[in-house]
Amino acid sequence: MFTTHTYSVRRKRLAEDLTDGIVLLPGNEESSMNYADNLYHFRQDSSFLYFTGIDRPYLVLAIDAESGEEMLFGDDQGIEDIVWTGPLTKLTEQSARAGIANVRPMGSLPALLQKAAAKGRKIHYVKPYRPELILKLASWMNVTVKELMENVSLPLVKAIIAQRSLKSVEEIAAIEKAVDITVDMHAAAISISREGMNESEIAGRLQGIAVSSGGQLAFPTILTVNGQYLHNHAAGNVLQNGQMVLCDGGAETAMHYAGDMTRTFPAGKKFTAMQSEAYDIVLNAHTAAVEMLRPGILFRDVHFKACEVLAEGLKELGLMKGDSKEAVQQGAHALFFQCGLGHMMGLDVHDMENLGEAYVGYSDTVKKSTQFGLKSLRLGKELEEGFVLTIEPGLYFNPYLMDEWAATKKHAGFINYDKLEPFRTLGGIRIEDDYVITGKGSRLLGKELVRDRLGIEAMR
Amino acid sequence: MFTTHTYSVRRKRLAEDLTDGIVLLPGNEESSMNYADNLYHFRQDSSFLYFTGIDRPYLVLAIDAESGEEMLFGDDQGIEDIVWTGPLTKLTEQSARAGIANVRPMGSLPALLQKAAAKGRKIHYVKPYRPELILKLASWMNVTVKELMENVSLPLVKAIIAQRSLKSVEEIAAIEKAVDITVDMHAAAISISREGMNESEIAGRLQGIAVSSGGQLAFPTILTVNGQYLHNHAAGNVLQNGQMVLCDGGAETAMHYAGDMTRTFPAGKKFTAMQSEAYDIVLNAHTAAVEMLRPGILFRDVHFKACEVLAEGLKELGLMKGDSKEAVQQGAHALFFQCGLGHMMGLDVHDMENLGEAYVGYSDTVKKSTQFGLKSLRLGKELEEGFVLTIEPGLYFNPYLMDEWAATKKHAGFINYDKLEPFRTLGGIRIEDDYVITGKGSRLLGKELVRDRLGIEAMR
Repeated sequence: MFTTHTYSVRRKRLAEDLTDGIVLLPGNEESSMNYADNLYHFRQDSSFLYFTGIDRPYLVLAIDAESGEEMLFGDDQGIEDIVWTGPLTKLTEQSARAGIANVRPMGSLPALLQKAAAKGRKIHYVKPYRPELILKLASWMNVTVKELMENVSLPLVKAIIAQRSLKSVEEIAAIEKAVDITVDMHAAAISISREGMNESEIAGRLQGIAVSSGGQLAFPTILTVNGQYLHNHAAGNVLQNGQMVLCDGGAETAMHYAGDMTRTFPAGKKFTAMQSEAYDIVLNAHTAAVEMLRPGILFRDVHFKACEVLAEGLKELGLMKGDSKEAVQQGAHALFFQCGLGHMMGLDVHDMENLGEAYVGYSDTVKKSTQFGLKSLRLGKELEEGFVLTIEPGLYFNPYLMDEWAATKKHAGFINYDKLEPFRTLGGIRIEDDYVITGKGSRLLGKELVRDRLGIEAMR
Repeated sequence: MFTTHTYSVRRKRLAEDLTDGIVLLPGNEESSMNYADNLYHFRQDSSFLYFTGIDRPYLVLAIDAESGEEMLFGDDQGIEDIVWTGPLTKLTEQSARAGIANVRPMGSLPALLQKAAAKGRKIHYVKPYRPELILKLASWMNVTVKELMENVSLPLVKAIIAQRSLKSVEEIAAIEKAVDITVDMHAAAISISREGMNESEIAGRLQGIAVSSGGQLAFPTILTVNGQYLHNHAAGNVLQNGQMVLCDGGAETAMHYAGDMTRTFPAGKKFTAMQSEAYDIVLNAHTAAVEMLRPGILFRDVHFKACEVLAEGLKELGLMKGDSKEAVQQGAHALFFQCGLGHMMGLDVHDMENLGEAYVGYSDTVKKSTQFGLKSLRLGKELEEGFVLTIEPGLYFNPYLMDEWAATKKHAGFINYDKLEPFRTLGGIRIEDDYVITGKGSRLLGKELVRDRLGIEAMR
């Protein structure tokens, strides 16, 4: 699916976009759990994967942006490594598959970098997010950690984002595989959950599905009766009738593309009346948002529309009042929806988050807000054909936040504080699917999984 | 099960063993996968767990060994954290449960350490195995990374090992829970594996069992038809009749105690004749080793005995010749058994490996060998009542190693190189269980899972 040509073309364009200096893309290393040799599963850096396709630790790609020379730095195994891990493909073979002509020993990298820097050439690298690479990069370039972090290359950040934002047909197919497995995970969660089961029992089954498919979880599963907390991974509660279960989970395929979906379902057989009303508001917001998706629209405006639908619904429930548009502009709805409507998705579940949301999700003209709620919107800029993103509106009845706001009667013109009491224990609802922006609108990725309340109940 | 008293007693003894300076035990932090906020599951440092029982990132325990003052450094959440993660227990409450009187903000730790160092007081810490802690410790103490790594405290290493090596009744019960889940994982692997299944499909099911029980995998599962490579995690082959499947996996409980077992079974219904012969040799070695376990014996001698049983069996197969004892002393058996018979197990699957095998598994009088094979024996010293360890003999028919040795006719007096050919593709066999050293001998931990060949076949 992805050929040698795929990776060569990507790297050539990257070098052309940079025009000068040396592009340095370090792959990830192994990560230790409770001692050096007990390892978390290896996760390659996504940009390294995008430009090489090589899924192996302790490698660095360097491209001379002027000469176009491409070099893979790394070391082959010795016989004692083979006793422990079995034979790995030779680096020359892996680099040839990626179309990279030169393989060099890792030990020769520092000299190359320091020589280039001495000649005044720019070393382009993005901000490292793993501490071992912070230590190594600083050492290789012979700079302090402070200097290292101050000299990341904005041109490289922008050049990578320019390519990775627009998913090719092959990439979309790869993402749909991840979404299909993700659908299986959610269908299982909805079908197998029963009163009396522990959250972790269900979460374990989902992880088993992801790993059994040859991949991993794309992110730690949120499977909780406390969906009112947005990223609550503490799975340990026993499901009780009357509760709702919020499941936000996704698979990462062997190719490392991600899926990301959320379904909310009753711990018993049916939603209660109050849960049903809240659920339908979230579903309406999801539908309204999807209808707006098309190239050229600001995703921030899609977010605002979803928020307004939520606010309208909350007015019907008696929790909000006043003009919904105005309430959303002032951020009053954020008492119930404290985060953003969606984010880019690809090789990373929050795609390219390590490169900075200011560049991935925003632009020179569309800047990120600092308002509570809106500041958690990871994507605000104009959509383009080939963007892949999530749509995930929700309602989160967080009693701590209610108390915090009530203490100062925040946004009192929009919130009916005297009506909050029965909703303090309602929990949280989120409905999330993945979409690709097409020429005229959008397309749901992967197999369709029922979203509506009656359909969900029918699966219980 | 573990009470406030448990942790207080452990810390008091630690302070008494050190007598001077400040004991610094940093807990682990979160670990990033493909961007800063996409996290591997959190794994607390085992020594931090042992002395506090607190399973939460970004904490540091400090004990003044002279005054006995105990301080937990860390910071509580703000309201915006609660929106994302839900409310966490207050640090004062967690520290009270652990019997630690003082909670202090993390920001006050560097001053305390630098002031103490300025007074010439020793800061006792063990070698950090996570890069973020290397960076932080160096910064807190205002030393270079090189200075940091050179000044680890051997007295602290020894004091921790002295306590953690001897498992209490409560710890043994906690380990047995982990082993019981581990037994369930292996019973599932043996029962569900079928020709045509992918290795990762089975490995995923095992991971699901571990996570569903409320814990995690204790280490990455080895589930492979290429068991001849000792730690081969590349799960992606399709099981074929005639192959053997080697499954080395273990659960870590919610309390973070580990189980570690290996079973080897036919991918089809029955072992072949050649597989059966090799299997029974490994089983004999396992039985012979267990029979020797008792306080006072050198584990190295148990290892030698197991190796001799393997060598005797290999002589009957025609692969080895000469005196078995002599062959083992010279390391000739290591062509087929390249590693050690077992290791300590507890909060870490290789217990306390981060503290150094020279102290955990060896002593001033029993030093680790540098001989190929024997140098991978993690435990050599005299056994004591309360040690928990694995017994895991194996036979690994590694064609690369055969070629390497054949090229120089290494140990030609003990190896029949002309007989190796039919065994090049046999694979690997390991049979592993977990034992506690008792007053007079040893006891198998956890539920018993069939080890013999016919019993294994009956489960297929």
